[in-house]
Amino acid sequence: MSLLAVGSIAFDSIRTPYGEAEEILGGSATFFSVTASWFTPVAVVAVVGEDFSDQHFRVFHDRAIDTVGVEKVAGRTFRWKGEYLGDLNQAHTLDTQLNVFQSFVPKIPAAYLRAQFLFLGNIGPDLQLNVRRALPNLRASALDTMNYWIQGMPEDLAKVLATVEILLINEGEARMLSREHNLKRAAEKIKKLGPRAVVIKRGEYGATLFGPESIFTAPAYPLDQVHDPTGAGDTFAGGFMGHLARTADLSDANLRRSVVYGSVMGSFAVEDFGLGRLLRLTPGEIESRYREMKSLTHFDA
Amino acid sequence: MSLLAVGSIAFDSIRTPYGEAEEILGGSATFFSVTASWFTPVAVVAVVGEDFSDQHFRVFHDRAIDTVGVEKVAGRTFRWKGEYLGDLNQAHTLDTQLNVFQSFVPKIPAAYLRAQFLFLGNIGPDLQLNVRRALPNLRASALDTMNYWIQGMPEDLAKVLATVEILLINEGEARMLSREHNLKRAAEKIKKLGPRAVVIKRGEYGATLFGPESIFTAPAYPLDQVHDPTGAGDTFAGGFMGHLARTADLSDANLRRSVVYGSVMGSFAVEDFGLGRLLRLTPGEIESRYREMKSLTHFDA
Repeated sequence: MSLLAVGSIAFDSIRTPYGEAEEILGGSATFFSVTASWFTPVAVVAVVGEDFSDQHFRVFHDRAIDTVGVEKVAGRTFRWKGEYLGDLNQAHTLDTQLNVFQSFVPKIPAAYLRAQFLFLGNIGPDLQLNVRRALPNLRASALDTMNYWIQGMPEDLAKVLATVEILLINEGEARMLSREHNLKRAAEKIKKLGPRAVVIKRGEYGATLFGPESIFTAPAYPLDQVHDPTGAGDTFAGGFMGHLARTADLSDANLRRSVVYGSVMGSFAVEDFGLGRLLRLTPGEIESRYREMKSLTHFDA
Repeated sequence: MSLLAVGSIAFDSIRTPYGEAEEILGGSATFFSVTASWFTPVAVVAVVGEDFSDQHFRVFHDRAIDTVGVEKVAGRTFRWKGEYLGDLNQAHTLDTQLNVFQSFVPKIPAAYLRAQFLFLGNIGPDLQLNVRRALPNLRASALDTMNYWIQGMPEDLAKVLATVEILLINEGEARMLSREHNLKRAAEKIKKLGPRAVVIKRGEYGATLFGPESIFTAPAYPLDQVHDPTGAGDTFAGGFMGHLARTADLSDANLRRSVVYGSVMGSFAVEDFGLGRLLRLTPGEIESRYREMKSLTHFDA
C-alpha cells in the first residue's frame, strides 16, 4: 500500500438539472480512493456510522481499497444534501448532518505507517497535522482545504501547510488564503507557506500547476453534458495522487502528467451521479482520454 | 495588403486599480490593426472626427498600417469612458459618445478589394454584411460581435454569420447566441449557423477553438499583473488573424497556432494602458512568449 487517504465518507443527496439521487455514497475519501484505485493500491482512514452496511464497504473492496482504517462507530454516517442550478458551477447546500464525522479523530493503523504518499482530504487542519506528523517517511503529501478552515482556523492551517509538499486548492480559496487576486502572485505567496507545488483547480476551466520549476496549465476535458459535479475536486486529487504514487516520480514533467490524469478523472466523475462513472471505467478509457487531452492542447512550436 | 479590418477608432478614458488614462487611442480597428501589423500588412476601414490629428494617424503609419480607408468627417471621434474594479474582469461603462461612429457606413477603397483576409470588428451586423458582400474573393473572414447585436439585430446577425468562416466571440456571448450553457454544444449550434471555426474567448482562462476538425484549448499566459484589459479581445483577434493572413494556411494545425498567437498578443495588451505595450514590442518578444506558451501547456504522452 503506497497511497493513504484521510477524509470523509458520506451519504449525498443531490439534485441537478439532469436528475436527482438519494443517499448515494460520497465524501472526499470515497471519491479520492475510488479514483486513485485505478492507478495504485490505496487505503482509507475515515469514520462511518452504524448505518454503513457491508454493501457499502463492498464498493471499496471491489476496487481493492483497504478499509482497515475505516472506523465504524455508534451513530449515523455523515450526510450532505445539495442542489446545483443552471450552470452547475456552484453547489447550494440544503442540509448538512455531520453525525459521526463531528467527532472524527483519524487513527492510523500500524500497517499504514509505511505509506509513501498521503492525501489529506478536506478535514480540520489540526487533524490533518496530526496525521501528517504520524507519517514521517512520506515521499509526498498533498492537502486539500476550504474557505471554512481558511477563515476559521488559519493558524492550524499554516502549521499543516508548512509540512506538505503539495496543496490542491480551488481558485477562490487560493485567493482567500493568499489575500491576493492575481493567481500567479497568489500561488507564489502560498508556496512561501510550505508547499513546493500548488495546484489551483478552476472547475470547467481546468487546473494550473505552480510547480517547483515551472507553471503548467491543463484545460478541463470538454464534455457535452455535466450531470453532477459533486466530488470532482476529490476525483481530480485521486487521479493526480494516484498517478504520482504509481510512478513515485516527483519531477516537474511527472507532476504535469499527474495534473492531466487529475483532469481526465475529474471529467469522468461529472458524467454521472456520484461514483457511477468512476466505478464502470476501464484502464483503456483512462488512457484514451489522456491522449485526447494531449490532442486538445497540442500545437506546433 | 492581405488583411483588412473594419471597426471602430475611439478615444478611451480608462480607470483601473493601477492608474488612469485620458482620451488615449483605442477602438476595435485600432487594437486589431496595431497587433496584426506585427505579422502582416494590414489596412483599416473606419471613421474618425475632425479632432483626429496627424499625430493620431502617425500611430498607424509608424506601424505601416494603411489608413486610406479611414474616413475623416465633420464632428467628434467616438469616445468611451470605462472603469475596471477589483478583479478587472468586467468593464463598467461610465460614458459612451458615439459621435461620428453613429452614422458610420464602411466604404471599401478599390485597392482593398483584393484583400484575402478580413476582420469584421464589432459593428452593426448589417454593416458587416455589406462589407463581406463587397469582398467576394476572400480566403477567410472573421467576425466579432456582442450582446447588443445578438439581442437587438438577430436576423441581420444570422445573415452575416452565414457568410463568414470564423467567429470570434466571448464565452457569455456564445451562450447568449446559442441559448446553450454548455460551451461544446453552444459551439456546435453556432457552427450550424455558418462559421467553420468558432473561437470562444474566455478572458483570464484563455481561448477554445472549435475548429473544422478538432477542439483546441490555449490558456491565457499567466501574468503577475493586469494593468488594463481594454482591447484584449481585439488584440487577440489581431494576433489570430495576423498569423493566419501571414501564413495563408487554414489547416487545423495552423488555426491552433493562430489561437496561440492571439493569446500571446492579448497577454501583451493588458500589461499596459491602451496601445502602450503593443507599440513597443519586438518580434523576438512575440516569438519568445509563443515558446513560453508551449512550455506552459506541454506534457509527455
